Amino acid sequence: MRGLLISAGKLPSEALIKKEMMKSDCVVAADGGLKYLLDLNLCPDYAIGDFDSIESKYLDMALDKNIKIEKFNPEKDFTDTELGLNFLKEKSCDKITMLGATGSRLDHVLGNLSCLIRLYEEKIDSRILDDNNEIRYFERGLIRFKKSNKKYLSVLPVDEVVFSTWKMAYEVSGLRIKKDETRGVSNQILGEEAYIKIEKGSAFIIRSND
Amino acid sequence: MRGLLISAGKLPSEALIKKEMMKSDCVVAADGGLKYLLDLNLCPDYAIGDFDSIESKYLDMALDKNIKIEKFNPEKDFTDTELGLNFLKEKSCDKITMLGATGSRLDHVLGNLSCLIRLYEEKIDSRILDDNNEIRYFERGLIRFKKSNKKYLSVLPVDEVVFSTWKMAYEVSGLRIKKDETRGVSNQILGEEAYIKIEKGSAFIIRSND
Repeated sequence: MRGLLISAGKLPSEALIKKEMMKSDCVVAADGGLKYLLDLNLCPDYAIGDFDSIESKYLDMALDKNIKIEKFNPEKDFTDTELGLNFLKEKSCDKITMLGATGSRLDHVLGNLSCLIRLYEEKIDSRILDDNNEIRYFERGLIRFKKSNKKYLSVLPVDEVVFSTWKMAYEVSGLRIKKDETRGVSNQILGEEAYIKIEKGSAFIIRSND
Repeated sequence: MRGLLISAGKLPSEALIKKEMMKSDCVVAADGGLKYLLDLNLCPDYAIGDFDSIESKYLDMALDKNIKIEKFNPEKDFTDTELGLNFLKEKSCDKITMLGATGSRLDHVLGNLSCLIRLYEEKIDSRILDDNNEIRYFERGLIRFKKSNKKYLSVLPVDEVVFSTWKMAYEVSGLRIKKDETRGVSNQILGEEAYIKIEKGSAFIIRSND
């Protein structure tokens, strides 16, 4: 079951939101994400959060459109994004895409990357998507990447990572990168597909475009 | 000696660039950062990089303005930002501010965060700055934060961090946060100053505004 969470970071393009909504079984707007969707005349299945940062007319609009609203106390130990992710997990989603999870607040962006780690540990296949990036988190294993519209493929160590690459511009074998090194940035897939094997440690793998 | 590096990420406001240039003893533009500065009629002391992504007229303009140019081969193991940082270290800078180090390419942003870790290990007091964020990296120790125009103060664990806070909206004592947790996001300084003591581990500390 595919879940889609739309948070209140930078709004991705309407085309990307619609494409992802079409593919999803359950669409949740976290707090300010509700405003974005309603302004585009798009309807999530659920809206979740403390709603302390959006005008009340949006909550009225949501009720009119039969969007189910789950309201939480603003004094809480979880971010709105985490509340949304927990909700999607309760709905048995085993694949989750996060939109609106990047943007100008770097603390929120890094917090959302932490959520990717947590989801991986819970065996939920998840990613953060915006118009320039697709971000996933991986531990030990072999991963296949098909050619896409994203030119670059980068490996960013979370602590320390040892990995090999095949069919890429820079092929490496057992390369060790520590958390203070940038050598995994801006590799490229050469043909129709490429492989990365993480032998030790963990990393964010980011596919991106300028 | 204060160094300023201007990279090719998202351009901060002209006011912020000018303010930081005024405070700096050595200003280096990394690759595309040169274009930004020249378009604003601002002159760095040095321009560094492979310059494969900017028009040659900018290099001509730089020569006219007596900006010293250090050109590197594009096939290299370092990003342009790293080349710039290494250059500032050779010039004996013990404080470094990075502008243009955030933006839409999340792989570059995380790579630049890796640079903050490396600089900390080299005992260089450094930060990434943009119009919304000031990002620093810390390991064990007591840090004082003065009230500023940034509303939020967040602690983002790099691996696992144990820390305490004083004079903040959420005061914690010996709180342990792992890399998959977001509990350190969006704390606030209450009065004129606040303190964070990192007892174990390491973290990015981000001051931010919406």
